[in-house]
Amino acid sequence: MQSFNPPVRTLMGPGPSDVHPRVLQAMARPTIGHLDPFFIEMMDQTKEALKYAFKTENELTMPVSAPGSAGMETCFANLVEPGDKVIVCINGVFGNRMKENITRFGGEAVVVEDKWGEAVTVEKVEQALKENGDAKIVAFVHAETSTGAQSDAKAICALAHQHSCLTIVDTVTSLAGSELRVDEWGIDAIYSGTQKCLSAPPGISPISFSEAAIHKLTNRKTPVTSWFLDLNLVMGYWGKGAKRAYHHTAPVNTLYGLHESLVMLMEEGLENTWDRHKQNHETLKANLEGMGIKFVVNEQDRLPQLNTVWIPDGVDDAAVRSTLLNEYNLEIGAGLGDLAGKVWRIGLMGYSARKENVLLATAALKEVLSA
Amino acid sequence: MQSFNPPVRTLMGPGPSDVHPRVLQAMARPTIGHLDPFFIEMMDQTKEALKYAFKTENELTMPVSAPGSAGMETCFANLVEPGDKVIVCINGVFGNRMKENITRFGGEAVVVEDKWGEAVTVEKVEQALKENGDAKIVAFVHAETSTGAQSDAKAICALAHQHSCLTIVDTVTSLAGSELRVDEWGIDAIYSGTQKCLSAPPGISPISFSEAAIHKLTNRKTPVTSWFLDLNLVMGYWGKGAKRAYHHTAPVNTLYGLHESLVMLMEEGLENTWDRHKQNHETLKANLEGMGIKFVVNEQDRLPQLNTVWIPDGVDDAAVRSTLLNEYNLEIGAGLGDLAGKVWRIGLMGYSARKENVLLATAALKEVLSA
Repeated sequence: MQSFNPPVRTLMGPGPSDVHPRVLQAMARPTIGHLDPFFIEMMDQTKEALKYAFKTENELTMPVSAPGSAGMETCFANLVEPGDKVIVCINGVFGNRMKENITRFGGEAVVVEDKWGEAVTVEKVEQALKENGDAKIVAFVHAETSTGAQSDAKAICALAHQHSCLTIVDTVTSLAGSELRVDEWGIDAIYSGTQKCLSAPPGISPISFSEAAIHKLTNRKTPVTSWFLDLNLVMGYWGKGAKRAYHHTAPVNTLYGLHESLVMLMEEGLENTWDRHKQNHETLKANLEGMGIKFVVNEQDRLPQLNTVWIPDGVDDAAVRSTLLNEYNLEIGAGLGDLAGKVWRIGLMGYSARKENVLLATAALKEVLSA
Repeated sequence: MQSFNPPVRTLMGPGPSDVHPRVLQAMARPTIGHLDPFFIEMMDQTKEALKYAFKTENELTMPVSAPGSAGMETCFANLVEPGDKVIVCINGVFGNRMKENITRFGGEAVVVEDKWGEAVTVEKVEQALKENGDAKIVAFVHAETSTGAQSDAKAICALAHQHSCLTIVDTVTSLAGSELRVDEWGIDAIYSGTQKCLSAPPGISPISFSEAAIHKLTNRKTPVTSWFLDLNLVMGYWGKGAKRAYHHTAPVNTLYGLHESLVMLMEEGLENTWDRHKQNHETLKANLEGMGIKFVVNEQDRLPQLNTVWIPDGVDDAAVRSTLLNEYNLEIGAGLGDLAGKVWRIGLMGYSARKENVLLATAALKEVLSA
């Protein structure tokens, strides 16, 4: 077995996205102890920077030491108790995964369904809330990574609160890529990933919980099934400064990477980052439409950072992606579930959202499709 | 907020241990997609190398995408069903954590208790097995990170099998640091960490499951509570070659680090690695005893890679550790639980198990204690 030297790719799939050299360098800095005062100071800074990225004042804002799927599970494991009724909106893979979480933790899932590629229909959520006065939580995906559709998080959260429900929102693909305002929109529990628009390596899931969500989890009648994800314990580990209680060993070097990506986010400015994603999306959109390629999602519901397009008739999906990867070192994403073989997902996330990438993707796709 | 530049420490606590520059460099290699053929090839190599490190032919040998605590939870979440009786041996922090896992997943814990700092008493396990004919699992910690005691895994597993029980074994601190033979000893489910004797950064937990363990988890009557850790799903993601099914996004760069540390392990040879830990332990032991410092654990039950010693009378625990850290950049570990303030844990794990570290630790401790 030899040392592994990966090829140098341009990552324009649904994530991981390209990681900036500054972030990669940060990963390689010397490992220090997870109880070292310097590490604790870095943890505090990371929490503050995540508050900035989420636009929240939530004290409980921190990175979970595992990928986005574990961030999702952190929300449901802590907030759903056996018997709790949860309204869950499904319009793609990750809404389905939410439902799976709800039932595994003993909750009762009330499904609000929309077609893959469409946004969650706000009126359907309202109807479900009216029909289920005993519902405790509304869960939905803000930015569906499987389709590239974004839903109206502000409107759904407002409705949920009118009906005294907490909200759990998946923002794995939206955080730092498009408008997201945790406090203003009234999101109670949110999770994301590092490997999308933050452009840090995968393996960590930033989360944030409102006071109302903390109230629910600290007043549970039953213990959280997961010891590893029990926020009653994890909060002590990520608590302020020196008062931290040992829980698990944090992924030290991966957190160096996340910290550096957050430094870069603050240097650019969050709103500027949103704009950059939008501008590059506009160019890519014009280029693809110029080639006769059509988008799956309606214009008003489209995520700029994840462009899902129909594969032109007669084109071999796997052959094209494989040629792009092997001959151009360019990765674009395949479709999932019912959309497998029918769509491509072209990501413009974080450091991948650059003019040169848009040009490369356009030119490479043009060459391969006309070959 | 500025880029984070950690101090350069010598890590001789209970982990994380020093990470070799080769491993740090591997972490900084370009991120590629987790479905990239090159990444899949690296995953296959990593699984093979973990089989080598565990001394097993178990097909289900893989790294969990989260720290050791999640590796522990993977074992209990998948193998314990509500109502299952589990004999759990407690002789330190991590045995207690096992018990917590058992009860959270609805199991009934039968506790076999030994003093902190002592090995598990094999006769007590036998007694418990005789008294609990309906027990399904025996769980214990091979190498207690909180005390530095190692237990006789071979004898306990043999007894468990005589009574038709599966075994779950914590080897977070033993893997690659001292003798460990999964197949020969009959371990059914094992978990470890990367940040101890493998000297890779924290954040990943290698596990291995025997055929008998797989039979139990694939024949459960109830679903695994955790979606993220459900091996029925994760096995598909870490399955052989191109047949992999998307589950979550693997921590790509951290896995580069683990891969490199496994390459180095194979270069040195597993048995040579065990020897190196032992030799450095012998030197450290002689040096410490020469200073009148006494070990907590009986000689025959001592882990060479984790030296737990009584703090000499009248010495200020926190002041010494803090001076070592601030003035010598040397980290040693504090005691946990009842041993807090009474012991130090001096690690010689992985890349930290070097002659120069033994000399440094001895000399620095001598200076600080005589100051």
